[in-house]
Amino acid sequence: MSDINKVVLAYSGGLDTSVIVRWLQDTYNCEVVTFTADIGQGEEVEPARAKAEALGVKEIYIEDLREEFVRDFVFPMFRANTVYEGEYLLGTSIARPLIAKRLVEIANETNADAISHGATGKGNDQVRFELGAYALKPGIQVIAPWREWDLNSREALMAYCEERNIPVDFSNKKKKSPYSMDANLLHISYEGGQLEDPWVEAEEDMWRWSVSPEAAPDEPTYIELTYRKGDIVAIDGVEMSPATVLETLNKLGGANGIGRADLVENRYVGMKSRGCYETPGGTIMLKAHRAIESLTLDREAAHLKDELMPRYAKLVYNGYWWSPERIMLQKAIDESQTFVNGKVRVKLYKGNAIVAGRQSDDSLFDAHIATFEDDAGAYNQKDAEGFIKLNALRMRIGANRGRKYD
Amino acid sequence: MSDINKVVLAYSGGLDTSVIVRWLQDTYNCEVVTFTADIGQGEEVEPARAKAEALGVKEIYIEDLREEFVRDFVFPMFRANTVYEGEYLLGTSIARPLIAKRLVEIANETNADAISHGATGKGNDQVRFELGAYALKPGIQVIAPWREWDLNSREALMAYCEERNIPVDFSNKKKKSPYSMDANLLHISYEGGQLEDPWVEAEEDMWRWSVSPEAAPDEPTYIELTYRKGDIVAIDGVEMSPATVLETLNKLGGANGIGRADLVENRYVGMKSRGCYETPGGTIMLKAHRAIESLTLDREAAHLKDELMPRYAKLVYNGYWWSPERIMLQKAIDESQTFVNGKVRVKLYKGNAIVAGRQSDDSLFDAHIATFEDDAGAYNQKDAEGFIKLNALRMRIGANRGRKYD
Amino acid sequence: MSDINKVVLAYSGGLDTSVIVRWLQDTYNCEVVTFTADIGQGEEVEPARAKAEALGVKEIYIEDLREEFVRDFVFPMFRANTVYEGEYLLGTSIARPLIAKRLVEIANETNADAISHGATGKGNDQVRFELGAYALKPGIQVIAPWREWDLNSREALMAYCEERNIPVDFSNKKKKSPYSMDANLLHISYEGGQLEDPWVEAEEDMWRWSVSPEAAPDEPTYIELTYRKGDIVAIDGVEMSPATVLETLNKLGGANGIGRADLVENRYVGMKSRGCYETPGGTIMLKAHRAIESLTLDREAAHLKDELMPRYAKLVYNGYWWSPERIMLQKAIDESQTFVNGKVRVKLYKGNAIVAGRQSDDSLFDAHIATFEDDAGAYNQKDAEGFIKLNALRMRIGANRGRKYD
Amino acid sequence: MSDINKVVLAYSGGLDTSVIVRWLQDTYNCEVVTFTADIGQGEEVEPARAKAEALGVKEIYIEDLREEFVRDFVFPMFRANTVYEGEYLLGTSIARPLIAKRLVEIANETNADAISHGATGKGNDQVRFELGAYALKPGIQVIAPWREWDLNSREALMAYCEERNIPVDFSNKKKKSPYSMDANLLHISYEGGQLEDPWVEAEEDMWRWSVSPEAAPDEPTYIELTYRKGDIVAIDGVEMSPATVLETLNKLGGANGIGRADLVENRYVGMKSRGCYETPGGTIMLKAHRAIESLTLDREAAHLKDELMPRYAKLVYNGYWWSPERIMLQKAIDESQTFVNGKVRVKLYKGNAIVAGRQSDDSLFDAHIATFEDDAGAYNQKDAEGFIKLNALRMRIGANRGRKYD
Repeated sequence: MSDINKVVLAYSGGLDTSVIVRWLQDTYNCEVVTFTADIGQGEEVEPARAKAEALGVKEIYIEDLREEFVRDFVFPMFRANTVYEGEYLLGTSIARPLIAKRLVEIANETNADAISHGATGKGNDQVRFELGAYALKPGIQVIAPWREWDLNSREALMAYCEERNIPVDFSNKKKKSPYSMDANLLHISYEGGQLEDPWVEAEEDMWRWSVSPEAAPDEPTYIELTYRKGDIVAIDGVEMSPATVLETLNKLGGANGIGRADLVENRYVGMKSRGCYETPGGTIMLKAHRAIESLTLDREAAHLKDELMPRYAKLVYNGYWWSPERIMLQKAIDESQTFVNGKVRVKLYKGNAIVAGRQSDDSLFDAHIATFEDDAGAYNQKDAEGFIKLNALRMRIGANRGRKYD
Repeated sequence: MSDINKVVLAYSGGLDTSVIVRWLQDTYNCEVVTFTADIGQGEEVEPARAKAEALGVKEIYIEDLREEFVRDFVFPMFRANTVYEGEYLLGTSIARPLIAKRLVEIANETNADAISHGATGKGNDQVRFELGAYALKPGIQVIAPWREWDLNSREALMAYCEERNIPVDFSNKKKKSPYSMDANLLHISYEGGQLEDPWVEAEEDMWRWSVSPEAAPDEPTYIELTYRKGDIVAIDGVEMSPATVLETLNKLGGANGIGRADLVENRYVGMKSRGCYETPGGTIMLKAHRAIESLTLDREAAHLKDELMPRYAKLVYNGYWWSPERIMLQKAIDESQTFVNGKVRVKLYKGNAIVAGRQSDDSLFDAHIATFEDDAGAYNQKDAEGFIKLNALRMRIGANRGRKYD
Repeated sequence: MSDINKVVLAYSGGLDTSVIVRWLQDTYNCEVVTFTADIGQGEEVEPARAKAEALGVKEIYIEDLREEFVRDFVFPMFRANTVYEGEYLLGTSIARPLIAKRLVEIANETNADAISHGATGKGNDQVRFELGAYALKPGIQVIAPWREWDLNSREALMAYCEERNIPVDFSNKKKKSPYSMDANLLHISYEGGQLEDPWVEAEEDMWRWSVSPEAAPDEPTYIELTYRKGDIVAIDGVEMSPATVLETLNKLGGANGIGRADLVENRYVGMKSRGCYETPGGTIMLKAHRAIESLTLDREAAHLKDELMPRYAKLVYNGYWWSPERIMLQKAIDESQTFVNGKVRVKLYKGNAIVAGRQSDDSLFDAHIATFEDDAGAYNQKDAEGFIKLNALRMRIGANRGRKYD
Repeated sequence: MSDINKVVLAYSGGLDTSVIVRWLQDTYNCEVVTFTADIGQGEEVEPARAKAEALGVKEIYIEDLREEFVRDFVFPMFRANTVYEGEYLLGTSIARPLIAKRLVEIANETNADAISHGATGKGNDQVRFELGAYALKPGIQVIAPWREWDLNSREALMAYCEERNIPVDFSNKKKKSPYSMDANLLHISYEGGQLEDPWVEAEEDMWRWSVSPEAAPDEPTYIELTYRKGDIVAIDGVEMSPATVLETLNKLGGANGIGRADLVENRYVGMKSRGCYETPGGTIMLKAHRAIESLTLDREAAHLKDELMPRYAKLVYNGYWWSPERIMLQKAIDESQTFVNGKVRVKLYKGNAIVAGRQSDDSLFDAHIATFEDDAGAYNQKDAEGFIKLNALRMRIGANRGRKYD
């Protein structure tokens, strides 16, 4: 443990990571660099500075990464219509590679030889942080205190603080939520507490970003989203930055009771866990992106994307953002988005995000061909016979040889 | 055209297929056998008998196929969580193979040499009927009047009727819907009319099976679904047959504004088309099936299913139900359902089907392992380090060789 | 048929396409533009000029496309290790999109409104030509004489020639092969004749590009191939152009009895057909490319490629080179080739292409880690325990719940 | 370490596992049960009894598992045409799940609480043994001495033996091969030694099961293989058991220089390794199985198999034989083999296994349709036009909207 001189810690300013600062200093007798990022979690990051200073930290990084987060991580992922296990929009997963990247870059800048994080040994986040760090800086050392120490309860942590006289104000410890939470611009998540019984419905008090469908307005809200190359660039005709797009959609979605998910998921480390998520903006984005694609994407490109998506989702969930295979898939996905331009009108109403219209200068929908009315020769119905006959040929030959398909 | 002696027609009793009866008799100088099935379309089938008799049909088949439809087609498809292009629950597609099968069986019973149907040359249904028929009886002849005749408008059809004095009472022609519709126990669909402009929202009057979310009750309805090997066998503890399950869920869903979809889809024949669908029961089933699977399915089995699903959905959509590849996939899917047993509690509220709880004697969720609290040694957090290290190894080696993953 | 003014014909100078020239002139009363390309079929293309002139053709295109063929079609396809149905290296398939592209471009240059080709209505080539043409010029008309005329035997063709006094010298008709053949720089193919019985072995006389393994030299030949970004750029240290690479490998392979394949394949139009192929250079390239990838490609990138390959192969075989989905896959594949650099040593001996060595500055093979000897700490064997434990966790939980996996 | 009372060891009778017997006795103070299986490795297993007895082992299992190995593991795997990373026939991988199964069964019979094996911490075999054991008996303990002890060289092992006076005769230690080898009825493998440089060709002396192509007979050998449901049941008309089939093919292949492979593969634990393999019978089986499938398998069934194969191969390689996802895939694969019946004639000649003919009563090859001659109306060439037109439609619409596909 003597070979660590300096460690960069992903520091939230909260109890756990404050304890980690001191524990790292004590255990490894090393310098700690703190890194605190605003990725839209909805809490001030600047207060982390004073807390870090009070812990004797000399190199303190506090950064606003919201635009980078949405532009380079959230938006590329949504181009793929990414959903893990049919339900989860990967709100936590997609933030980790950005943190890993900055931890490594700061390690390079500060000449640190290790990084550290506050994720537990049972979850996916440790994997995501560490796979990213190893991929970007293979010689980096990783310290995961939760896998090493014996401070395995809140009480133990508090005792450690008092014993070490850790001068951090944890006034919010009184109103401590019973849930383990994580938030960023894409979502807020809840785990633990009574959620550990999957038969029990989440209590209404738990949810923080959205009203319940019941409490949402009785009148629907219509919005218009403008897409350019698969990304939203304007809402109701107003161009805005990626982070502003997501913030705006979060507010709109949250106000209309949209984006709650309650699910049991399969963690990469091998267990199932129950999680609840609020992803108001993301839920709208997924629905709208599929709608604009439905108009502008070639059928086989769309189907290829659909077949690759579960694999892409698994890579993001498992922490392989910084991997050659994720980049390969991204190349294919991004190529498909060239013509994903146009507008989608979405109706928001009490938990529902309903597509009310889509239009595009790059539309492949051709009413002259699709119409049930006379199409003036745009499509020759006789072609269908040959199409069917040849598609059936292999099965007819099989049936002629006595094969049964039922 | 002289080599057809007898043809079995999928006969609805409506205007179009009544004209087809006469047109077949006239054009092919052949016997017509009519086949009318109740697959839950919500209209009486028995009246088709008198209409067929009036047209001189001697062999008339009228059958209630609702149980077979749900048990052997809808339920197997839902085991795969099947969705086409992210949105469409395949309500029309899944009914066609059953009709094709009965057409062929009746052709065998009546010694007919051809089958016929009323699907147009632009749509998917012709493909589904005919691929099925060719697969099950390779020497069958298929007559698709819409690809052959020149009666390409409603007016032409009416003129044909009057000219031939077709004695069918089309009293409902006055209130003819502007939409092309299709219904069975799984869904009702709408195409054409003003839907041909994908920017225009469907009018409220169009929908027939569900109230709007706005008009749905202000109080949620909770239901409990019991699964056995991936299929629902009871609702609120009452065991019921497959068709009754779906009928019941349709009523519950429809009453709560659940199951409307408005989408642009890619037809197998190469064009995009706009369709609106009401699938109240199916929408609940999809959500609930994913929930019971989330608790009972092994992770990799679930992921394999997710990766195979788009392919399975495409097969069903394109009309390849009766094909060796669909059967192969079904074997894999059905194998996975052995332990998909248990209960799901669903909250229905104004368009939302929300999972409120799931439990199973075959649950793989283990709160002792997943807990954030002390797990008494059920899981060794130290194992995670080796897990991550070896999973990262290939990328570390790559990075050591100078590869960048960003 | 009066709306065709000018048609561009893929013209070989042989009997069939010469008849087509005249048939097009007679049937459509239109100008014919001939296009003859050297894609390495091993026959002079210049003689086609006099033949076309004799048929009254005024616009004659004769082009050497060998470099473009190998650089832009063969090499990209080999980056994917493309094999159709486990055996076929797609020698015919990959040449068609280039021909289609030039037909369309010449149609644009000459203001022609149609293209034509000599492929039959039973084969894949008609599909490949026409899908390509429609994708690149959607308004083009396509004339496929073999699907239209009644000259369905060689005798009928000859009679047509005599009747019309077609002044082409078919001196080689005397020694007409019993096989239908096609050749380009990648391969030569044989179909028909006694091959139509799949139980009969191909006769030794049929093969034209390679000696039999029995007749090959008793001494092996070693060659060294240099790769840059997945493409061969030098043989035995001599840099050469793509077409020269393939020509050289064809000679080397053919002289050593390498590259014969005898197989039954599934055509896109629905039937099985027996074909024999000689692909001497391609066979070596496939083996060597896998070898250089084995050293330089990340594992998961390699596995992703392997899983995508059958799909990519099917696209090429079926004629979808010019499609959005092929391009999407190509982006992913090309991305993976960045570090596929280095050398492969191949031993050629009596039908065998055996990898005898591979090396690369971008090698990911690390003897220090892989060694069975002491690795000085490069790899911590203890990590394996955690790796296995967590990978086994889901199955252990399942087994604890009573699930059997045998 | 005191909680182990009895451990079942996969015991070869060689130096390493003999040391392990004593090390287990000493370290865990426990009973050791030895399990030695004949899976066709080509060495007597009975001598292991005396060695085990000399080490004080009381419960000794010696079994002939050859038939079970081929029937239940090798044959099912070959139904999938399984190849890992394009080259490796999985000879080692496929034997491990059988050993794991027997270890667990013997643990049940002998009331042992642990199993042990002699695989190192760097390889795949530890993973395969342990995943299998955990899946079949989740509470089993696993002892992997190579990950625990410090006997990391041959010298250390020898010293340990002398020190403990281990009474085993290691007369073959003198002629110890420089390679790490593994053998069973499917293959023999070589790793280590000079193979650790992938640029160096394997020396001729290394190979044990096959002559070199150069040394093989100058006359080809023809054999005829009979398939029933995808498995070989007779050679040259003589019905034989699965193990006898494979033994016979090994001899035939080995005598003709067939089945050598020299490759760099990606291990599951994250590193690349160089391996050489002799799989004479397997190489013939793969070629012949593809040939009988080419005649009898529906096209889309074949393509589905090809797309699933890399995934299936990865599962086998990584040790997931006893997993729900492998079983799901097996169900799909086995379903496809119903009609894979018939005969394949294979020519063996100096390293080549060449398909010389295939025939089947379940053949889907229809010469009447495929012929280039007049087919008497079996296939209507005009159908191809509609087939192509509709398949091209989506791309034509795209091109009409200005999309380029090149």
